[in-house]
Amino acid sequence: MKKSDIGLVGLAVMGENLVMNMESKGFTVTVYNRTAQKVTNFINGRAAGKNIRGAYSFQELADSLEKPRKIMMMVKAGSAVDQLIDQLLPYLEEGDILIDGGNSHFPDTIRRTQYVESKGLLYVGTGVSGGEEGALNGPSMMPGGSPAAWPYVKPIFQAICAKVEDGAACCDWVGENGAGHFVKMVHNGIEYGDMQLICEAYQLMRDLLKMSDDEMHEAFKKWNETELDSYLIEITRDILAYKDEDGSPLVEKILDTAGQKGTGKWTGIAALDEGVPLTLIGEAVFSRCLSAMKDERVKAAEVFGRKIPEFTGDKEAFVEAIRQALFASKIISYAQGYILMRTAAKTYGWNLNYGGIALMWRGGCIIRSAFLSKIKDAYDKNPELSNLLLDPYFKETIEKLLPAWRTVAATAMQYGVPAPAMSAALSYFDGYTTACLPANLLQAQRDYFGAHTYERVDQPRGKFFHTNWTGHGGDTAASTYNA
Amino acid sequence: MKKSDIGLVGLAVMGENLVMNMESKGFTVTVYNRTAQKVTNFINGRAAGKNIRGAYSFQELADSLEKPRKIMMMVKAGSAVDQLIDQLLPYLEEGDILIDGGNSHFPDTIRRTQYVESKGLLYVGTGVSGGEEGALNGPSMMPGGSPAAWPYVKPIFQAICAKVEDGAACCDWVGENGAGHFVKMVHNGIEYGDMQLICEAYQLMRDLLKMSDDEMHEAFKKWNETELDSYLIEITRDILAYKDEDGSPLVEKILDTAGQKGTGKWTGIAALDEGVPLTLIGEAVFSRCLSAMKDERVKAAEVFGRKIPEFTGDKEAFVEAIRQALFASKIISYAQGYILMRTAAKTYGWNLNYGGIALMWRGGCIIRSAFLSKIKDAYDKNPELSNLLLDPYFKETIEKLLPAWRTVAATAMQYGVPAPAMSAALSYFDGYTTACLPANLLQAQRDYFGAHTYERVDQPRGKFFHTNWTGHGGDTAASTYNA
Repeated sequence: MKKSDIGLVGLAVMGENLVMNMESKGFTVTVYNRTAQKVTNFINGRAAGKNIRGAYSFQELADSLEKPRKIMMMVKAGSAVDQLIDQLLPYLEEGDILIDGGNSHFPDTIRRTQYVESKGLLYVGTGVSGGEEGALNGPSMMPGGSPAAWPYVKPIFQAICAKVEDGAACCDWVGENGAGHFVKMVHNGIEYGDMQLICEAYQLMRDLLKMSDDEMHEAFKKWNETELDSYLIEITRDILAYKDEDGSPLVEKILDTAGQKGTGKWTGIAALDEGVPLTLIGEAVFSRCLSAMKDERVKAAEVFGRKIPEFTGDKEAFVEAIRQALFASKIISYAQGYILMRTAAKTYGWNLNYGGIALMWRGGCIIRSAFLSKIKDAYDKNPELSNLLLDPYFKETIEKLLPAWRTVAATAMQYGVPAPAMSAALSYFDGYTTACLPANLLQAQRDYFGAHTYERVDQPRGKFFHTNWTGHGGDTAASTYNA
Repeated sequence: MKKSDIGLVGLAVMGENLVMNMESKGFTVTVYNRTAQKVTNFINGRAAGKNIRGAYSFQELADSLEKPRKIMMMVKAGSAVDQLIDQLLPYLEEGDILIDGGNSHFPDTIRRTQYVESKGLLYVGTGVSGGEEGALNGPSMMPGGSPAAWPYVKPIFQAICAKVEDGAACCDWVGENGAGHFVKMVHNGIEYGDMQLICEAYQLMRDLLKMSDDEMHEAFKKWNETELDSYLIEITRDILAYKDEDGSPLVEKILDTAGQKGTGKWTGIAALDEGVPLTLIGEAVFSRCLSAMKDERVKAAEVFGRKIPEFTGDKEAFVEAIRQALFASKIISYAQGYILMRTAAKTYGWNLNYGGIALMWRGGCIIRSAFLSKIKDAYDKNPELSNLLLDPYFKETIEKLLPAWRTVAATAMQYGVPAPAMSAALSYFDGYTTACLPANLLQAQRDYFGAHTYERVDQPRGKFFHTNWTGHGGDTAASTYNA
């Protein structure tokens, strides 16, 4: 066998499937795993008869690779990546390329790029989305790191990644150091938001409209033929139709507690750090936290004994209103996510291609949808677009959806069915389109109790005033106290 | 003059006022400031004729203090504190006490306590709230750090701090290392929330009910005689009545852009780290971010040209409904804040006294209110209370407020006046009191695309299942991929 085009370390489901995908596109792959047995099982199992070789030592792995070597690490994000890098470095030489395809936190990737480059090698931190199916058949890939590595990994990545209708690859260079993992993180945050919105729609149908799983299946089936056409709506449709062994809907047997210790949380923290209101994803993350408090919710439900009143309106019309509310909220979520990327790009000096990002997400990944081509269009038309909502298509769309969105949010509030993400999205829209928010009162309060000073509407920006509101406070402006 | 009881470094408004406060309670204080002129100005100005001495070197400062020396640092949070500690250490000896009274981030205080203790000294990180007025006349103080330091600083802190009606001091030992600054951070987060709720009430009155500032002043005046009786309602009342030189309300001349680079953000991050849904404070922080996007909001307001429809209901009744919505939301905010403290206490090994914290906040600080005595009662009755909402008083109160709260939140959604915190609070309440949230669908989705597995309602917890939903995915469960 000729030398391998690429090596891959870490044979969990994502790693295995990526290897199968690469091999199917004509690449020869060497695999390595900490537990040797996994290598043997894989080589004798799924990989039997393929251009895949097993390595049982780092030396063997390094020796088997074409130079410059390309090694993709598919291990648990965190210190395992640092350890693996240090274990691999002695077997590599200048110009070799280490690729981290895990869900690493972008500050780690910034640090690792610098570290690996300081050793004379190149580093790539790439987001890989699409789950096990995507890894096998074409994931969305968001690579960043050392720009000099891109020409070497591009042929492999663009061969294995998802393609959209016109054949364009859902993988392109994102930017330097941590940019790829940052964009993947925002992708995951948006995924949290999309999933939460679907859950809210489902809960409104289930608990307010008392629809059966079959009826909900039909609704999601129809929705998938509208602007909502997307992977997550599609699998929701299928999940709602999936029957357990006893013939009843499996989804209703599943415990309603979701995990959240991951990239959704990081997205929220990045938004707080950057001062970007990312309210929808924030609510989505917190909703997972609340779902995890199952025992306490059961107890609280008993203590309060709340009943959702009978819905007296037009059910069919309300299902359509829910669809519109979901769509409008989804637009807000992406608008917020894009502002976060724009703001972080300034902070970290990345030159992000916003239309390109929409294209990368367009296929292969969990949030893939027809909708993303509209985002690509918006940024292709105006790469400097400050907010998606100001693009003519999205402005008109939101305006059409607004009445139904308001009805659904208000109904959720009145009937007591929680729709935190849909209503947070609407509050954001209402705040974003309000020239005068009430923060003038807030600034007055801060100046009152903390001498924080304020600006005036009738004076130039950057000129600060302090009022001695009580007559007995001092005139000293604050310099150490920050409330 | 006898040796000083305490030294204070950093003569901005908070530092100066704390010194005046200490002196007025019979303590002799030595002051030091990096800029020597500030010391001279203070000694010859406000401090003239008082038991306050100036020091122009760390040696002079150290020599002037009674042993064990107590030095309170009132400098900008961040590296300035680390530098000051390292500058002071050479002049101090075993058993001396360094006190950080700034708004330090609690992980820094954890680290500094360990560092200073490793040098044989004691460390106190104390929250100080109440702004310039509080610092002068009695702040709320939340000290944590080296427990052995408490007996030495207690007489000073409990002398200068605020007192409630029965004379109890609004200062007690919070806990080890960073506990004091953590509790102060949550206090500030709650302050963000309280201010945001007042702003939303104000905006609903101003933009929906078209009330004048005088009418709003009257409303807040009345509210301050209800359960909402609090410092922030009181100053809002006064701010709304305050006239600019031309006789018009000053508050309407203030620019509606608020800063947020502080402890509110940290509270949000802590909540994300601890997995605690802190939705109201989250919305409050994000609302400040949104307010800061002034130019863009003005542009978006123009693009969308939204008009708030005329309010056709009973105005007076709606003002009372807003009051009830504010009160209910406030209860949620404190409930969420307390859960964050409980969760962090487990993480960091603090033994927090929850009733005591309510007492510390009861007077002196920005969030002081009659309401906090109800929280103290709740935790005195049941120190293990898992959620404030389950306390009988709060449960009954929330139930009484619920109809008005729903009306206000729904109206805000329908009319397009943003009330993100009030509606996030209601969504949280509705979620918290729901036994079955829609996270079962979310878990199905995660298992579908990422083989994340799920638990079942008809099987014991901790038993995980994976379904091959598509029939063509693998049966391998995920171990590296986390969405």
